Amino acid sequence: MNKYLTHDSWCIIEDGFHPDKQLASESIFSIANGHVGQRANFEEHYSGETMSGSYVAGIYFPEKPERGNWKNGYCNNDDKIINAPNWSGISVRLNDERLDMGEWDVQNFRRILNMREGVLERSFEATSLKGNKIRVSVKRFLSMAENEIGAINYSVTSLNYEGRISFIPFIDGDVRNMHTNYNESFWNVLQTKTEQDVSYLWAQTRRLDFHVCCALTYVLYKNNEQQQAKVTKIEKERVAGFSIGADVRPGDTLCLNKYVAVVDSLNHPREELTETACKIARKAKTMGWNQLFAEHRNVWAERWAQSDIVIEGDVAAQQAIRYNIFQLHQTYTGNDARLNISPKGFTGEKYAGATRWDTEIICIPFFLCTAPAYVSRNLLLYRYKQLPKAIANAKKIGLGNGAAFFPLATFNGDESHNEWEYTFEEIHRNGAIAYAIYKYVDYTGDTGYLEQYGLETLIAIARFWAQRVSYSKHRHKYMLLGVTGPNLYENNINNNWYTNYIARWCLQYTIDCITKIKKENFRTYKELCQKLEFNEKTETGNWLEIINNMYLPEDKENGIFLQQDGFWDKEFVAVKDIPQSQLPVNQNWTWDRIMRSSVIKQADVIQGLYLFEDDFTKDIIRRNFDFYEPLTVHESSLSPGLHSIVASSIGNGKRAYELYLRTARLDLDDYNSDVANGLHITSMAGTWLSVVQGFGGLRIKNGQLHLSPQIPEQWNAFEFHIVFRDNLLGIRIEKQRTIVSNITGGDIDVVVNGHTCNIAAGEKASC
Amino acid sequence: MNKYLTHDSWCIIEDGFHPDKQLASESIFSIANGHVGQRANFEEHYSGETMSGSYVAGIYFPEKPERGNWKNGYCNNDDKIINAPNWSGISVRLNDERLDMGEWDVQNFRRILNMREGVLERSFEATSLKGNKIRVSVKRFLSMAENEIGAINYSVTSLNYEGRISFIPFIDGDVRNMHTNYNESFWNVLQTKTEQDVSYLWAQTRRLDFHVCCALTYVLYKNNEQQQAKVTKIEKERVAGFSIGADVRPGDTLCLNKYVAVVDSLNHPREELTETACKIARKAKTMGWNQLFAEHRNVWAERWAQSDIVIEGDVAAQQAIRYNIFQLHQTYTGNDARLNISPKGFTGEKYAGATRWDTEIICIPFFLCTAPAYVSRNLLLYRYKQLPKAIANAKKIGLGNGAAFFPLATFNGDESHNEWEYTFEEIHRNGAIAYAIYKYVDYTGDTGYLEQYGLETLIAIARFWAQRVSYSKHRHKYMLLGVTGPNLYENNINNNWYTNYIARWCLQYTIDCITKIKKENFRTYKELCQKLEFNEKTETGNWLEIINNMYLPEDKENGIFLQQDGFWDKEFVAVKDIPQSQLPVNQNWTWDRIMRSSVIKQADVIQGLYLFEDDFTKDIIRRNFDFYEPLTVHESSLSPGLHSIVASSIGNGKRAYELYLRTARLDLDDYNSDVANGLHITSMAGTWLSVVQGFGGLRIKNGQLHLSPQIPEQWNAFEFHIVFRDNLLGIRIEKQRTIVSNITGGDIDVVVNGHTCNIAAGEKASC
Repeated sequence: MNKYLTHDSWCIIEDGFHPDKQLASESIFSIANGHVGQRANFEEHYSGETMSGSYVAGIYFPEKPERGNWKNGYCNNDDKIINAPNWSGISVRLNDERLDMGEWDVQNFRRILNMREGVLERSFEATSLKGNKIRVSVKRFLSMAENEIGAINYSVTSLNYEGRISFIPFIDGDVRNMHTNYNESFWNVLQTKTEQDVSYLWAQTRRLDFHVCCALTYVLYKNNEQQQAKVTKIEKERVAGFSIGADVRPGDTLCLNKYVAVVDSLNHPREELTETACKIARKAKTMGWNQLFAEHRNVWAERWAQSDIVIEGDVAAQQAIRYNIFQLHQTYTGNDARLNISPKGFTGEKYAGATRWDTEIICIPFFLCTAPAYVSRNLLLYRYKQLPKAIANAKKIGLGNGAAFFPLATFNGDESHNEWEYTFEEIHRNGAIAYAIYKYVDYTGDTGYLEQYGLETLIAIARFWAQRVSYSKHRHKYMLLGVTGPNLYENNINNNWYTNYIARWCLQYTIDCITKIKKENFRTYKELCQKLEFNEKTETGNWLEIINNMYLPEDKENGIFLQQDGFWDKEFVAVKDIPQSQLPVNQNWTWDRIMRSSVIKQADVIQGLYLFEDDFTKDIIRRNFDFYEPLTVHESSLSPGLHSIVASSIGNGKRAYELYLRTARLDLDDYNSDVANGLHITSMAGTWLSVVQGFGGLRIKNGQLHLSPQIPEQWNAFEFHIVFRDNLLGIRIEKQRTIVSNITGGDIDVVVNGHTCNIAAGEKASC
Repeated sequence: MNKYLTHDSWCIIEDGFHPDKQLASESIFSIANGHVGQRANFEEHYSGETMSGSYVAGIYFPEKPERGNWKNGYCNNDDKIINAPNWSGISVRLNDERLDMGEWDVQNFRRILNMREGVLERSFEATSLKGNKIRVSVKRFLSMAENEIGAINYSVTSLNYEGRISFIPFIDGDVRNMHTNYNESFWNVLQTKTEQDVSYLWAQTRRLDFHVCCALTYVLYKNNEQQQAKVTKIEKERVAGFSIGADVRPGDTLCLNKYVAVVDSLNHPREELTETACKIARKAKTMGWNQLFAEHRNVWAERWAQSDIVIEGDVAAQQAIRYNIFQLHQTYTGNDARLNISPKGFTGEKYAGATRWDTEIICIPFFLCTAPAYVSRNLLLYRYKQLPKAIANAKKIGLGNGAAFFPLATFNGDESHNEWEYTFEEIHRNGAIAYAIYKYVDYTGDTGYLEQYGLETLIAIARFWAQRVSYSKHRHKYMLLGVTGPNLYENNINNNWYTNYIARWCLQYTIDCITKIKKENFRTYKELCQKLEFNEKTETGNWLEIINNMYLPEDKENGIFLQQDGFWDKEFVAVKDIPQSQLPVNQNWTWDRIMRSSVIKQADVIQGLYLFEDDFTKDIIRRNFDFYEPLTVHESSLSPGLHSIVASSIGNGKRAYELYLRTARLDLDDYNSDVANGLHITSMAGTWLSVVQGFGGLRIKNGQLHLSPQIPEQWNAFEFHIVFRDNLLGIRIEKQRTIVSNITGGDIDVVVNGHTCNIAAGEKASC
């Protein structure tokens, strides 16, 4: 744990420079706009420890795979997120001295991430080796309104210096990933060009032919007056930009506004990239800082209106929850179904930046509640578009008939991960993808999606389960052998309760959807049967046979579900009894020891009870929670959030709050000493859910919004905003009452603690 | 399968040159002498496909590990066998033309590995591009009598050429491994030096500081007359040697004898290496070909006397079994307890040349029967010397109190393999090491070994099992969770019957040995207790508790042992019902599919029944064999031999012979199309065992030799030789009778089919 940030309700604040925490700060102060993401690398040269990170959504690199011990069926590419040409650089010179916080004496440093407005600010005073002293103040944002524009306002005030100050705004194509298998350079720089008013760098990935072009324009001010200074053009092999400056005396302020366009071949024809980039960069300059920023701020205002959570009486919790909301919206804006959310978003290279099942289990529920429906819909479409590749992937493991097996980690639908026990065996991800369709339709009521895309996906997934099960003649049951469940501290197990349950659920839900669509839109049904060569009678007959005879391990005596076959054979050790020196176990125990211990990494049975809570009594959920929670080390960031929600649902508010604390400030307080690698973006959605579904008790039942609020005793009140179908609602939970505001949309019924409240449009009610 | 070799009872013969099979031939025609091994690379330049392989026993390289997905506890070195400076090169020039079978027209090619004498011969006629025609004839051997000496007799007869023929005998230090992770060069050449009569190359491995020096001397003959020709010295950066020649006319024969010394820092002080090498090379030259070869041949005659098998009526089988015996003796001669046997011996790089449990289960039983006791004893001592590292290895996985966990693959006692499911989980290897001690003591009667080294090893292994088990409160049994059994097509399973059985056996055998030594040599017992801080009462008390409550999965209804927990839950498919196109499954199925199938790679329960056959009735063994054999694909070369022995033991001679065929000519007929990578050295011992223990029915019971012979109907008779304690016996099994010859040693009782036969010294008897 590493607490060095100041608590504040709307801002993340670093007071005083912490060079030893710079890698962590670069992650924490990251900004993004769904299209471009940028770690908080300094604009000016920095000789201290830094990990350069500039990422463009959807652009990745198929590196040669890490070798190790090859297994039949492994993929040939090790796709990874790619550090793209850096748009943010501005070198600063005082004659022959170059500003460098790594070497200069730095004072009064302050860095602020203003989450309300989505802007990163930094100010400090610095004294050069020669004793020249300046005050620097920088602001930057990546426009949420114009997602190909970034803007930087870089201002230097001389405190004792008389002479020339130069700014060198540049685009840097000489970038590398910090972690590569073969230490390759991923980019060819195709062109650098600096014209009178604009400078650009055009680069191409060395494989897959992705193109990115960054163009920059600038305006220089001295004491708030625009300057028409003499410019030196920079046009090197891998760097493009300008050098521009002015003479100053103590008290003078020289300020550069740098406007950058970042465009790519996913969104523009390759041959128009440079032209488009220049056009956008010029447009940004024309619009100017104030207008660009105003538009950007307005988008943030809208996001906050739809998704803010207010916590009264606990600034640390307030700051944390807003931080999580802020980062999620920065990472994914929902306009492009080719994009998705990787565990670290745009903030680092870990997990290779690929999409995993985190999206379906954790992120979609967040976006459903906090953004228009199309955002979640695009996340579903992402998988739908990859369905043909998932069908090919199923063939690899021997399953045909249009069965789909979605990859564990992917960019384009191809598997990009090589560990047999996860790649081939963590098959419950297929269930998560089906479940997200269910959640989406249930929350939004958008049955059109089901007809057009959803059912096709569901049938392919159902066909997967129907073949992936095996029938035990011995136990007269269908089983799923050789799987890895959500608890990644068990590999290659048989009959993981969660996996078997969600498999069975998938089959039943698919049958339900077929029945519904057949009834409501027979033509769609017929077309689909034809397209998929789907014989309802024989296939669903087989599915029903499996549904009725699916084996689900349980211990009837103790009234709990068993995580997997043989779970009771373990020697049980509660987490509290493991010496602190051995935690986290994944850093202190060999892998085999973890495997055979009773230690659970993350929610597994509990994740199943969370997803399917309506299938179980509170009593069953409580017994399982009481059994599994003490065994769970929560060494996955996804885990405590879900446990917290379940704890809330069974009235264990104390434990719910403890678990919430563990997830809320995970990154801000760097609980696991790993923030340097990037933020835990996807798990942030779990934090939000643990407030809204956990403490708020938000559920959708039969298309109606239900709440069963409880409030942690540490809080005075809390308030959240959600988008539910045509309504935007504000829900304020106080110790004694719940107030529901129907902010936009028509009249609505909300059920609070079982009592239905009708709230008229624009009104609020205490329920 | 690839049959291109001529059947012959004592020789392996390639008639006609097969350049497309040259890689396989290089493996098959390998020669070695326990100290140096050499693939059958041509002496002269060869532009065709070749894999250079010159190996020096005990010299390896700690390469940077292959990366892949790291798990906590993995080792940091990827030790591998190293291709050493090549001692065998002799370039041949006809003026400006260099002999190259890859380019020249080759006729009447014949290559012979004479196994009786241990010599590799090759002859051919070759015509150069200019039409010059020569006859070449080459012999080489690595002396079994002087294991630092290799000799080559290279003879060229001009058929139509008039002019100069030059030989360039050289030592080549510019060698690489074919497979390296980082494409590193493993050697620094420290010195090349060519004096008047001797030339040497001295090299050092770039890590671990192993040194090797090769020195060469030569004699040149023209038409059998020694020549004193003018010599050109070669002393390049990585090559040392001579160039020498003479003018010839058609009919003249020019012949070079090259004598090489290969010495290393394992056997000599580094500072004396070059001097020693030169001395030995000069000595070889002084001794001359005939004397060197005579001494070498005498050693082979002794080996054959002790271990030959004669099969009458089946030349292919005769050739095969001799080939297996020959290769085993070449690979390991038993003089050095720092050496061991890797699955491919000195014939390739696969499996990295490291020692695995093959040694204990398969090879030691072979060497016990075919060589003096010290040979097997040194194989045991190899592990004993590595005991401290095995204790450190056990600590890594959390086991203390002097528990030993021997590595899966090793050179020096450190683990050198990184796959968690084998490295950490294939723990039955510890059992194999204990079992080999038992076998050794039982066969040789050498209880002194037990006192001095064996018991210490056994206690450390027993301590391992005592901690590695876990107690299931649920089933009131001790269990071994998270293991990989001998069947490598199952990973991370619980309660592998074989592993649990051998674990229990280890505990009991250790107790038995303690009791025995306590009784027979109390002082040794006390010293050991002190040295190991061994409290007999508490520790063996615990062991007995485990012995009495060890869980052994079985299906009582069907009277079989279950390979592991949950085995019955699989969908069973007999191997005969798997489409031929899907075999071998390890090349056609993804790993997960293999894992969850019922397919068994290699003997598992059957291996247990083989090791512990006295614990079970024939009926039990038969039921298990009939259940498991149809499920077994034998995709490990170790498997069919053991199954064959068990088939013999239950009177299933037909299946025993089918399985024998599968193992006997595995390499000669290249069954698995993988001989290019090297021979299956360790599994060759299994072939021998399937004749002697299988068809011969050889067993030791209470220190007495038992036979229960049966003869495959394809054979007329077979005969084998074995060393048993002080006797050398010849056993001839005919259709109707068994004749035992007591070749050396005193009178002996042999029990044939239950009847005791006393055979006087030097006599033979029909039993």
